[in-house]
Amino acid sequence: MQGEEDLRSALSCRYPGSSPDNFIITNGASEALDLSLRAIYTPHAKILIPRPYYSSYLDCVELSHMDNVFLELQDGRMIEDDIEKAIDGCIGMIFNSPGNPTGIVQSSSVMDKIERLSQERKKYIISDDVYEDFDYSGPHRQLKGEYIISIHSFSKSFDMCGHRVGYIYTTNKKLIEEIVRIKACTSMNTNLLAQDFACQVLETDKEKMVTQSQEMEKKGLYMYERLKALGLELWKPEGAFYLFPKMEDSSRVVSELYYDYGVIVYDGKWFGAPNRIRLSFATSRENIDKGLEKLGRYLNR
Amino acid sequence: MQGEEDLRSALSCRYPGSSPDNFIITNGASEALDLSLRAIYTPHAKILIPRPYYSSYLDCVELSHMDNVFLELQDGRMIEDDIEKAIDGCIGMIFNSPGNPTGIVQSSSVMDKIERLSQERKKYIISDDVYEDFDYSGPHRQLKGEYIISIHSFSKSFDMCGHRVGYIYTTNKKLIEEIVRIKACTSMNTNLLAQDFACQVLETDKEKMVTQSQEMEKKGLYMYERLKALGLELWKPEGAFYLFPKMEDSSRVVSELYYDYGVIVYDGKWFGAPNRIRLSFATSRENIDKGLEKLGRYLNR
Repeated sequence: MQGEEDLRSALSCRYPGSSPDNFIITNGASEALDLSLRAIYTPHAKILIPRPYYSSYLDCVELSHMDNVFLELQDGRMIEDDIEKAIDGCIGMIFNSPGNPTGIVQSSSVMDKIERLSQERKKYIISDDVYEDFDYSGPHRQLKGEYIISIHSFSKSFDMCGHRVGYIYTTNKKLIEEIVRIKACTSMNTNLLAQDFACQVLETDKEKMVTQSQEMEKKGLYMYERLKALGLELWKPEGAFYLFPKMEDSSRVVSELYYDYGVIVYDGKWFGAPNRIRLSFATSRENIDKGLEKLGRYLNR
Repeated sequence: MQGEEDLRSALSCRYPGSSPDNFIITNGASEALDLSLRAIYTPHAKILIPRPYYSSYLDCVELSHMDNVFLELQDGRMIEDDIEKAIDGCIGMIFNSPGNPTGIVQSSSVMDKIERLSQERKKYIISDDVYEDFDYSGPHRQLKGEYIISIHSFSKSFDMCGHRVGYIYTTNKKLIEEIVRIKACTSMNTNLLAQDFACQVLETDKEKMVTQSQEMEKKGLYMYERLKALGLELWKPEGAFYLFPKMEDSSRVVSELYYDYGVIVYDGKWFGAPNRIRLSFATSRENIDKGLEKLGRYLNR
């Protein structure tokens, strides 16, 4: 139920001070998030979500029978005082850094603040760390503490999307027990073959992981400059694969780009940010160029 | 999200009048059950569960924020009048036939009744059909109707436990949409390799499936006779892999058999039937003999 012993052992080597007992292998990061929310469920509880957010956070919280409360990001960043004020009415928070859709990495002082608030006020922090290996601002900051629930995926770091393997890392023993109890009823286990694959890919050279991240960053910066040259207002990518430029009438843009130009972009509305669109640079330089060329034609039509 | 097209096509060939759209591929039967309950969730709703029940039904209903109501089985069988009375206060029912832990197959008149009540009173029937290919009473009865949600697994029929592939079959389009919406947030998809394997094993010869079932039945009848010879009171197996004899102080028996004789049996308490124990015959004739010999020594000690 908790996952294969060797995979959990291999993971524990990556987290100083951890043991295999601190991990639960899940059917992707999505199940990890769902199980975490079901485990911390408290009647009428509220969960704080920085906005713009990853689209499924809202549904996940609703499906776990709790309520969403929003923390407005300022240019993709959390403001320390805002977190402090907003967290009090909530039992916890979900956020991602590097962020999807923002591409922003939260500052270390914000992360310090979250860590401290979590510990002092006993607030669960569900940290969606699926882009941990695509942090262009420096080594990924792993939050620590009894109320930290860290969500990870093999899909992004190791290109293992179709295998659906993710995991939860937390040092909270009671929470681990509760999550395992829930998983035992709701999905029993995670595909064993995929767990074996995951165990194998963990042996990937660290250098290779760094190269992968650097190449992604280069593509991001390239696309960022090209979008700026097209006159778009957007944030410089600090992590993940996304650019999130402002765009009036985003829904029309999404639809016209798709139907008239064969380009897929996502509507900012789906992430709580109307009048922005999300573009991904997790593709080849060639595809990025093709997309940019079409986007340019569309904007100058 | 809904599952690979070819797997759903292959499944639709097995259900007359169905289309690939009627299937959702899940991370095992457990996720299928969990998703179904979350999809039919109605505040304060009650779900009817025949007792003895498969142990995780209770937790699953609780985790979906609904309440359990019980229908007492008589010698493992549902009584038609009891169903009719009990279903009215509930939005639906979960049951399995062939049954785990009972090994009983519900009669065709009971199945007719359930089908009729479901349709007339718009009650969801979650039919846990994971033992469909181990029905010793004749071909498995597939319930039909708009409110029927049928839960299946590749683990039992095709020995694919570790791969975690199951599916939901229903002709209710709205329900399919809602389940897919929930799965998109809570586990996104099911391992693609395992879906490919599942597609392959569906080509298994029908004759081979029949032989597999006949061999299992023989083992069940053999074990049944041997247990009767040991003086135990139990039902003749009609399906699935289980025998469920009466046993005073079942918890002590389970513990002593495990620690003193190295035999694993399950406590009837876990299935809502104190003073019974569950034995499985899904193992080799040799293991069955070893287990029976140890059980004999224990009972005559």
